[in-house]
Amino acid sequence: MLRMSTLFLRTLREDPADAEVPSHKLMVRGGYVRRAAPGVYSWMPLGKIVLENVAAVIREEMGRIGGQEVLLPALLPREYYETSGRWTEYGDSVFRLQDRKGADYMLGPTHEELFTSLVKGEYTSYKDFPVILYQIQEKFRDEARPRAGVLRGREFHMKDAYSFDLDDDGLQRSYDLHRDAYMRIFDRLRLRYAVVSATSGAMGGSASEEFLAEAPTGEDTFVRSTGSGYAANVEAVRTPAPPALPVEGRPEAQVHHTPDTPTIETLVDFFNAAGLGRTFTAADTLKNVLVKTRPPGADEWEVMGIGVPGDREVDMKRLEAALEPAEVALLEEADFAANPFLVKGYVGPNALIGNKLRYLVDPRVVEGTAWITGADKTDHHVMDLVCGRDFTPDGTVEAAEVREGDPSPDGRGTLYTARGLEIGHIFQLGRKYTDAFELDALGADGKPRRITMGSYGIGVSRVVAAVIEQSHDDKGIVWPRVVAPADVHVVGTGKGEQIDVALRIAGELEARGVRVLVDDRKGVSPGVKFTDSELLGVPTCLIVGKGLDEGRLELRDRRSGEREEIGLDGAVDRVAELVTADAAADATAD
Amino acid sequence: MLRMSTLFLRTLREDPADAEVPSHKLMVRGGYVRRAAPGVYSWMPLGKIVLENVAAVIREEMGRIGGQEVLLPALLPREYYETSGRWTEYGDSVFRLQDRKGADYMLGPTHEELFTSLVKGEYTSYKDFPVILYQIQEKFRDEARPRAGVLRGREFHMKDAYSFDLDDDGLQRSYDLHRDAYMRIFDRLRLRYAVVSATSGAMGGSASEEFLAEAPTGEDTFVRSTGSGYAANVEAVRTPAPPALPVEGRPEAQVHHTPDTPTIETLVDFFNAAGLGRTFTAADTLKNVLVKTRPPGADEWEVMGIGVPGDREVDMKRLEAALEPAEVALLEEADFAANPFLVKGYVGPNALIGNKLRYLVDPRVVEGTAWITGADKTDHHVMDLVCGRDFTPDGTVEAAEVREGDPSPDGRGTLYTARGLEIGHIFQLGRKYTDAFELDALGADGKPRRITMGSYGIGVSRVVAAVIEQSHDDKGIVWPRVVAPADVHVVGTGKGEQIDVALRIAGELEARGVRVLVDDRKGVSPGVKFTDSELLGVPTCLIVGKGLDEGRLELRDRRSGEREEIGLDGAVDRVAELVTADAAADATAD
Repeated sequence: MLRMSTLFLRTLREDPADAEVPSHKLMVRGGYVRRAAPGVYSWMPLGKIVLENVAAVIREEMGRIGGQEVLLPALLPREYYETSGRWTEYGDSVFRLQDRKGADYMLGPTHEELFTSLVKGEYTSYKDFPVILYQIQEKFRDEARPRAGVLRGREFHMKDAYSFDLDDDGLQRSYDLHRDAYMRIFDRLRLRYAVVSATSGAMGGSASEEFLAEAPTGEDTFVRSTGSGYAANVEAVRTPAPPALPVEGRPEAQVHHTPDTPTIETLVDFFNAAGLGRTFTAADTLKNVLVKTRPPGADEWEVMGIGVPGDREVDMKRLEAALEPAEVALLEEADFAANPFLVKGYVGPNALIGNKLRYLVDPRVVEGTAWITGADKTDHHVMDLVCGRDFTPDGTVEAAEVREGDPSPDGRGTLYTARGLEIGHIFQLGRKYTDAFELDALGADGKPRRITMGSYGIGVSRVVAAVIEQSHDDKGIVWPRVVAPADVHVVGTGKGEQIDVALRIAGELEARGVRVLVDDRKGVSPGVKFTDSELLGVPTCLIVGKGLDEGRLELRDRRSGEREEIGLDGAVDRVAELVTADAAADATAD
Repeated sequence: MLRMSTLFLRTLREDPADAEVPSHKLMVRGGYVRRAAPGVYSWMPLGKIVLENVAAVIREEMGRIGGQEVLLPALLPREYYETSGRWTEYGDSVFRLQDRKGADYMLGPTHEELFTSLVKGEYTSYKDFPVILYQIQEKFRDEARPRAGVLRGREFHMKDAYSFDLDDDGLQRSYDLHRDAYMRIFDRLRLRYAVVSATSGAMGGSASEEFLAEAPTGEDTFVRSTGSGYAANVEAVRTPAPPALPVEGRPEAQVHHTPDTPTIETLVDFFNAAGLGRTFTAADTLKNVLVKTRPPGADEWEVMGIGVPGDREVDMKRLEAALEPAEVALLEEADFAANPFLVKGYVGPNALIGNKLRYLVDPRVVEGTAWITGADKTDHHVMDLVCGRDFTPDGTVEAAEVREGDPSPDGRGTLYTARGLEIGHIFQLGRKYTDAFELDALGADGKPRRITMGSYGIGVSRVVAAVIEQSHDDKGIVWPRVVAPADVHVVGTGKGEQIDVALRIAGELEARGVRVLVDDRKGVSPGVKFTDSELLGVPTCLIVGKGLDEGRLELRDRRSGEREEIGLDGAVDRVAELVTADAAADATAD
C-alpha cells in the first residue's frame, strides 16, 4: 500500500519552465521523475512503479515468443565496435571514455556487437539455433538536443532483443514473432500506434519497421494512406514507377538558348512561350542536383548527380537514408572548380555520364520519358531528352520529396502526413554483424553457415511518456490500468474518522490483490487531495468523505469523469470486482 | 519452465584460465556469467534469474523498514561532486567522461550527492522526515585490479539506500533499522557473516559497520574475539588504553650514548647490557615514525610524528584510515633537509613538539608511562622519558599494527584474524553531505534544522558470488533455494518416454507454483546431464530415468547428496510439498 502521508512525492501546481510537451509537464508535476542533468532523469517512487509495469508487460510478451532474458553491461570496450566499424560510425552521438589504463570504452547505445559475440562464444551447431535473447537495461546516447523529458533523453531504459537464425526464412519468422509481440505489448499498454516501414538508420540491414505512437507532439513525421493501412516513414516511401514508354517516334532532342531562366518556373514559362505547340509543366523538367558522398571512414568524396522531376525538391533526409551509411553533402565551389565540365545551373545527364560520374534518378524517370534539362552549357537547355535513348542513368534513388496527395505505394489511396513518437523498432539486420564477427553454425552437412540476425528495440522509458501523450487531460494524467502506479486511489477527506476508514478500506483492497494508493494526509484540504488525485491519474478513485456518516462513499472514474455514490458496505467487493475485470482484459490485448 | 533443450546455456568442463576463486570458476563453468571486458560481465539467463532472486529478498526487507524504491541515473554531472568535494577525492577510482559539449560527468560509484540534492528539492518541513530511499542499480568503479569475476568488478549491481533524519537519535533509529534488515536479508540468503566495526572509507562520517561473508578467499581481513561477538576491521580496532600511572617518584630522564643500535632489537640489548638493574623489552621503547599528510585538494603537506611502542610496526592502512580523508606519505630526504631538527633514526618527542609539529601517539602511551626513545641527536637515546612529565603528545592515533592475541577492545577474550567478503556496509554519514548541499528542514519552532544522513549498501552481484563461495563442493554450486535459478531440476534420461514424462512432471510442478528447470535434451548422455545438474546447483533434482518402466523416479538432494527412490504416482505432490516447506522457511530468516 502506498501512503501519501509518507510517500516521497511532492506534486507541483506549475509546469516546469523547460517543459513543452504534456508528458514532460505531467511527469514532473506529478512527481514521477526529476531532472538530474540535461536529458538525464531520476525516477521517483511512483515513476519507478510505472516503469516496472511497462517492463513487466514487455517481459511477459517476450517470454511468450521464447525470448530469454539476459543482462549485458553498459561499459563496452572499443574492440567490439572496431570489429563492426561502428566505433567510427557513431561519431558524436555516443558517450566515450577511457579507463585508468587508457583503454577506450563506449557507453552502450545498443548491443548488437556484444550479443553477436556472446552467441559466438556459446553456440556452434545448427541444432543450437534459432535463439532470441533480450534485456531491459539502461542505454546512453549523447543527443545533441536532449528534450521533452524522458522522450528524448541521454540515459534511458530500453528493451533490446536480438534474434539469431540459420537462414532468411528463419529471420523472417523471428521478425514476425517480434512484430506480433510488439503489437500485443502496445495493445496491452493501450497505445494507438502505426507500424511504419522505416529505413534502418545506422544499424545497417534491410527490412525494418517502426512502431509510432500517434501524437501531435511526435517528432517523427510519417505518411499514411487514405485508402489502405499503408504507413511509412517519409524516408522509406517507395515511389511507384510509371510504365515505360516506347522510344520510337519521339521527337529528337533539341538544344535551346534559354537566357534569363534562373528558376524552374521561368524555364517552363520560356518553353511555353516559345510557340512549340505544346504545354509544359515543372514536372516535365529534370532537375539535376549535385552532391558528394563518402563511405564511413573514407577520405575521398565521390561526386554524383541526382535527377528529380523539376516540380519536386530533393529531400536531403530521404537522400541520406537512401545512401546510408555514406555521408552526403552538397557540392562546394572547389568541387565545381575540380570538375569544369559541370556547368553550374545547366548540368545535364550527359556531362555526368560522359565523365563517369554516378547519375541516379527518381523512379519516375523511366525509359521513354522525355525531359527538359540542362544542356551542359551556360544559358542553354535541352528539350525532349529521352531516357533510354539519349541518356541511361546508373540507377534510381529515393531522393524526391514526398507530398500529401501522392499515390500510395501500395496502389490504394493517396498519402497524407501524420506525426508520431517512435516507441519500437524492428530490424532485419541480416548478416552485417555476423559477418563482422564471423558467427557461423556447423550445418547438418558439416559445412559452416553464416547466421542471420534481427534486432528489436522498445524504448521503455519513452513508452511511459508516450502513454501520457495519448492519455491525459487538462487536469493530469489518465493512466491505463496496466501502467498505473495503483489500481485505486482511496482518498480520505474530513476531520472525522474518514482517514482511518480510508486506511481500513485500503488494507482490505490490498488483501484482495488490488494495488492501492491511499491519501491519508492530515491537514490537507479535500480540494488539494482531489487535484492531486487527478494529476496522478490512478484510474479509479474512491472517496471517503463527508458522506461517510451516512455510510456513503463516492467512486470516480478518472477517464470518464463519472461519479457514483456507493454504500460503505460492499464497497470493497465492488471495487475489487471492477479492478479484477479490468485486469483480466489487460492481461491480453483487446 | 526453463528447458535445457533451448536454454541459452553451455556449461564448461574446464575452469577458465583467469579464475582463481571458486565462485568465479563455477559461475563461468555453469554459464551464469560471461566476461565482456576486464571486470565487466554479462549475466546469462540463469545468472539473471539468480541476480533477481537476491534483489527480490532485498526489496522485501527494504520495504519492511519503509524504504521507498527509486531509480537514479548512472551518468552524474560534475557539479554535484564538486559540491561535496568528491570530484577531486575520488582520484583514479572512478570513470569520468565528457559529453559533446565538454561537460564533465562521472559514472556513479555511489549516489550520496544526488540523493541529498533530490531530497532537498522535495522536502522542506520537519513533518516530511524521516525518509528512507533506495535503488538497485548498476554502479561503476575503475578498479586498479578487477579480479575474481563479479566479486571485484568495474560495473556491478548494488542496492544503495539513504536515510534522512532530523536528529542524531533519528539517524541511530534509521541505522538500526538497516542493520536489522541487513541481518534478515543475509540470513534469508543463508549467508554466514560477521558484522564488523569499520572505518568509513572515502564516505566520511562516523559510525559504520561492514557485513563480511566468511570466506577463506575473502580479501578483507578482520579480527574477532575469542570471548565475545566482537568483530571489526583491522582499521577500526580501538586499542584499549591502560590506566594512567603516577608521575611522581619516577626516575629522571637520562640521555645515553647508544652507538651501533640501528634496530629496536639492538637498542633493547644495549640497555639490558648497560647494567642498569632493569630488564627492557621492545615494548619499553617508543618508536617515532615521521609522515606527512595533506587534506584533499590541498597543496601543502604537514609533517607529523607518530609514536608507537617499539614492539609494533605502524600499519599504514590503519594510519590512513585514522587520518582520512587526508593523504598520508612517508617523509622523503627533502623533507628531512627542510626540517634539520629531525635527526633521522633518533627523533624524539621533543624535537617534534618543540618545533610545533603535530605528535600523535598510540593509545598505550598514557600519562606516567616511561619510554626509551630518540634523543634528537645522532647515536643518542633517552631513557625514562615520561609521558605527561617530559612530553605531552597532541593526541592519540590508531596506527600500531593489531596482532593476534591482543586483548579484545570490549574486554572479553583476545583477538584472532579471519577473512571475509564485504557484502554490505552501513554508515552513519551525519551531516557531511547535508552540510555541503545545505539540506535543512524547517522545525516546529520555525527554525531550520540541518538534516542528518545515513547510507547503506549491498553488493547485489557480489552477494551472488559470496553465496557460492560459502556453498559449493567439488562438483559445483549448491544454491540455497531462495537464490537458486529453480527449485527443482527435472532430469529426463533414457531413450524411451522419459523426456516426455519429465516434461509432463515439470508442467505439473510449475502449475503448483514450483520453479522448474527441466533437462529435456535428446542425445545427451545421463552422465553429462547429472554432471550439469550438480554444476548448476539446483537444490532438488528429480530424475526420470531407467526406473520409469517400473514407475520409479529418483529424488536427489544437492546439498546432502541423499538419494531416494520415489513412486511416479504422487511424485509431483511430494516434490511440491518439499519445495513449499522450504520456501516458507526462506520467507523469514531462521
